[in-house]
Amino acid sequence: MSITNNRHAIAIFALHLTTTLSASSSFSLPCPSPPPPSSRVRRRRPTVIATPPTPSIRACSFLRSSSSSSSTVPPTSSLSDDDGNDDDPPPSSSSSSSSSSSSSSWWKDYKFNDPHLAHSVIGDFPILSTRFDADGKMTSSSSLVDDERDAGGGGGTGGGKADRRLIYLDSAATSHKPSVVTDALISYYETMNSNVHRGAHALSRESTEAYECARDKVASFVNARDRNEVIFTSGATEAINLVATSLSCREGGGREYRLIGEGDEILITEAEHHSNIVPWQMAASRTGATLRYVPASSVSDGFDVSALMGGLVNDRTKLVSIQHVSNVLGTINPIGDIVDYVRDNASPDVLILLDACQSVPHMKVDVRALGVDFVVASGHKMCGPTGIGFLWGREDVLNGMAPYKGGGEMIDEVYMDGSTYARSPARFEAGTPPIAQAIGLGAAIDYINGIGIDRIHEYEIELGDYLRRRLEDVEGVTVLGPRVGVERAALCSFVSDVVHPSDLGTFLDLEGVAIRSGHHCCQPLHRALGHSHSARASLYFYNTKEDVDDFVSALEGTLGFFRSLTSGTTVDGKDGNIVAETNDDDPFVPLF
Amino acid sequence: MSITNNRHAIAIFALHLTTTLSASSSFSLPCPSPPPPSSRVRRRRPTVIATPPTPSIRACSFLRSSSSSSSTVPPTSSLSDDDGNDDDPPPSSSSSSSSSSSSSSWWKDYKFNDPHLAHSVIGDFPILSTRFDADGKMTSSSSLVDDERDAGGGGGTGGGKADRRLIYLDSAATSHKPSVVTDALISYYETMNSNVHRGAHALSRESTEAYECARDKVASFVNARDRNEVIFTSGATEAINLVATSLSCREGGGREYRLIGEGDEILITEAEHHSNIVPWQMAASRTGATLRYVPASSVSDGFDVSALMGGLVNDRTKLVSIQHVSNVLGTINPIGDIVDYVRDNASPDVLILLDACQSVPHMKVDVRALGVDFVVASGHKMCGPTGIGFLWGREDVLNGMAPYKGGGEMIDEVYMDGSTYARSPARFEAGTPPIAQAIGLGAAIDYINGIGIDRIHEYEIELGDYLRRRLEDVEGVTVLGPRVGVERAALCSFVSDVVHPSDLGTFLDLEGVAIRSGHHCCQPLHRALGHSHSARASLYFYNTKEDVDDFVSALEGTLGFFRSLTSGTTVDGKDGNIVAETNDDDPFVPLF
Repeated sequence: MSITNNRHAIAIFALHLTTTLSASSSFSLPCPSPPPPSSRVRRRRPTVIATPPTPSIRACSFLRSSSSSSSTVPPTSSLSDDDGNDDDPPPSSSSSSSSSSSSSSWWKDYKFNDPHLAHSVIGDFPILSTRFDADGKMTSSSSLVDDERDAGGGGGTGGGKADRRLIYLDSAATSHKPSVVTDALISYYETMNSNVHRGAHALSRESTEAYECARDKVASFVNARDRNEVIFTSGATEAINLVATSLSCREGGGREYRLIGEGDEILITEAEHHSNIVPWQMAASRTGATLRYVPASSVSDGFDVSALMGGLVNDRTKLVSIQHVSNVLGTINPIGDIVDYVRDNASPDVLILLDACQSVPHMKVDVRALGVDFVVASGHKMCGPTGIGFLWGREDVLNGMAPYKGGGEMIDEVYMDGSTYARSPARFEAGTPPIAQAIGLGAAIDYINGIGIDRIHEYEIELGDYLRRRLEDVEGVTVLGPRVGVERAALCSFVSDVVHPSDLGTFLDLEGVAIRSGHHCCQPLHRALGHSHSARASLYFYNTKEDVDDFVSALEGTLGFFRSLTSGTTVDGKDGNIVAETNDDDPFVPLF
Repeated sequence: MSITNNRHAIAIFALHLTTTLSASSSFSLPCPSPPPPSSRVRRRRPTVIATPPTPSIRACSFLRSSSSSSSTVPPTSSLSDDDGNDDDPPPSSSSSSSSSSSSSSWWKDYKFNDPHLAHSVIGDFPILSTRFDADGKMTSSSSLVDDERDAGGGGGTGGGKADRRLIYLDSAATSHKPSVVTDALISYYETMNSNVHRGAHALSRESTEAYECARDKVASFVNARDRNEVIFTSGATEAINLVATSLSCREGGGREYRLIGEGDEILITEAEHHSNIVPWQMAASRTGATLRYVPASSVSDGFDVSALMGGLVNDRTKLVSIQHVSNVLGTINPIGDIVDYVRDNASPDVLILLDACQSVPHMKVDVRALGVDFVVASGHKMCGPTGIGFLWGREDVLNGMAPYKGGGEMIDEVYMDGSTYARSPARFEAGTPPIAQAIGLGAAIDYINGIGIDRIHEYEIELGDYLRRRLEDVEGVTVLGPRVGVERAALCSFVSDVVHPSDLGTFLDLEGVAIRSGHHCCQPLHRALGHSHSARASLYFYNTKEDVDDFVSALEGTLGFFRSLTSGTTVDGKDGNIVAETNDDDPFVPLF
């Protein structure tokens, strides 16, 4: 274990300062850091194995074919296993129990069905070659090759090494971006930059074409019936707010738009992200509708559809909004069963919105098959740029809704005494859209399609199961969420018996391990689970077995260190956790 | 004149197809274009003269100093004139009349006070080296050097040249981005990409620091009192909608937020962009407030402050929203006089919003000196990325307003039966913010500061005046907006007596000249002026005298060609223009 008491001592002094700063609404860091050396910009690592083909930012597959690309992916079982121990059969990833897995070092020779995926794409993500020097400062690593990366130097295994590699386990917060995405952004700005839809000149035509082709790519990716069903937004949060605001802000002027009204009911769950709670609280407050919710106890061990009975869904239920995959529990909700129950028991014109932020990047989401009315997702969680997301909606529903924002693009005719509005998607895209970001998202979708979303999903299910089983072997760690055997996404939120999640995040950072700590924008769920915060490790297809192993090693070292300090601990009764040198009166309350 | 009848014949056949396609809400181009050659991506032209220093994406001048950088710019009059004809004094740019200027080729030896500015920065904008081949297809031009560029080859002057350079006169729609901005984006994605505010790990700290430093840069750029007064939005349209929605969507729950109510009055002008009309129509419709407006006749020849008298402003006036600079007329409104009058005559708690989209990129905007309550601007018009803009607001006002969007980041505590909200700016930044875009905007501000916003403004005033005088020399062209002598921004909207603006835009495009044609998101203003559309040439600091000259040359050639066809013209009575082969029954109505 490479953690030294000296570094821990420094970290303890820095800990409360850091967290207090990050919690302050009046952020005031003096921004002293020097600029990143220019040599770090635009550096490229060579791609090693089976890189997906570089897509065109204007390659519009939707207009040629609406079929999923996953059918072209070779079956993962045909790939050879390079772990070097064919005599040691891996434990079944879906049937093993935590008790059985804790009995040995089973993981050392664990073999993945698709051992090549992550290694074949790491070279596409320049940031994944980040290293930290002995002082924890980020350094360039353009000369790093995969052999070095895989040979260790990660948290907890570095021994005498002065530097550590980045182990990024925070993709549920945001994913990294492959070079084809940043290339698409630069290509846009340097070869076609122009406002869209509004000009007859060459740049404007090129920009418009690329922007609208990105819409085609999204439409194809989620199997929309029509490109007009895809609305670009600044993110998933805006997409939910678009629906919630449109349905709750009544306009005058005699126009009839679809609305939620007094006496209607909106149904969500207690496990939702704040972005799928607060907009509905605001909508209910505006309209006099009632906001109801499925309690966390009926969600946290896998969604219990029977919880919907007994009055939660009735003929006043006009809107149901639910997440596809929990960003804390990792549970994959049974949307088909939920939709069936809701359609059978709610108001005939009930609308169902699916928060698919944690599913669209990781598994095939077919909006037609799901049977919902709206799907939202964010681009930055699926290899795309920040500042872009989308709302998919049924076209007839969208065109019956009031606009969300007023301005250019969304109008038909404007007079001073009133205006008429365009149809979807322009209706909901007021102002200059996020052009470059949409094009970047299109490139991200091409990239994902090049790998195959089904292949990604299968890999992540296995890697996520491996992560969970490794974590459950760690003494004093409790993984939140359903029992082993319930399918879940590749993320684990957890608490320990010896250290506050925020401290844990800070100490793991010293080892180069990037996890997230806090309430993950799910305060009600955490309260229901009896914790104010948790730590979360979340994976994507570029994460390797070595990432998980090095993380667990660093975690064990950190917990061991804190355990050695337990003579001075206090008990946080509310959380039921032992928190080293902290209690609820401390000023640090991580914001998210 | 390089236009040939053959190319015109092709263009005429293509014209209605093109415009019909662009007007369709169901965009269905088959996206056939091949991807841009990879050699075009990340190409760089060497910077030639006096390039502003490459700024750091984390250099936070605001925290060190709040003074404007413009004081460090050398006076432009001290710069030498390289036009080569010192014996021919230029006409005064501010006092000349159109009648006097039409008498000679005065412009051939016209000398600018700051002849170096545009030439010194062109190399920072890779897209400005775009060329078009004989078929009008964009080609790479990485080998182009400034000497070639300045030697001609532009519209109307190419003679026997097969290719033409891009002459971009559409910066009022969107500006181009210098390499330092795209470098900042790539640097973010490749060295620090992470979600902000929510993680203790190194990448998250770096991202948060860079994002918040971008806020400092905006705050300093507009001379805000405090960084908490700056809210990042997806653009200026969202910024206006944020204010309009927050003030018009009444929440229940007993919370007291600032609101517009029934019987209150909102005042705008008839010359506003749709983004400053439609949100207020929606707000008035929701609340029962009355929307009033200053008629275009009191605005189009320079804002007539006396028009505010006679009831337009009274003690029921709760909100005034007005543009700083008209995107059609180029007029710079006398905001100080307007604010004084409104403060003296409106409701004591009146709020004043300034749409500064066409001013912030071009001139010093000091929010404190202006005396308004809100200022909005868009990043993509000021050398920044798409997908980013900002709202500046008085902090006390912002914290008394209801949130706009619900979600992560904007909350304090979330319970299932209600939530409490953070203070500004987090209060209005729900969800993962446009992180890379904000950082890119910060780099754009550094870049502009490196040149000096006052130097930019002075250059553009002169270049804009030159543009107008050149246009007024062209037979049959009418420039919209105030008489010569009224200070105006560097843009000219105009109509001709012989060709519809949309046709004009299409034909100039064949010459490599990018102007915009349409209503420029100002339908009411165009109606009031007696035109359904206009053509617009808009400049930025990277435009040269040669750009204007080549544009005017191409315009004269195009008009001459259409004039030769006038035997087949019809009169568009509504517009009072002669429109070649088109009338109001034609299917093409440009969207914007």
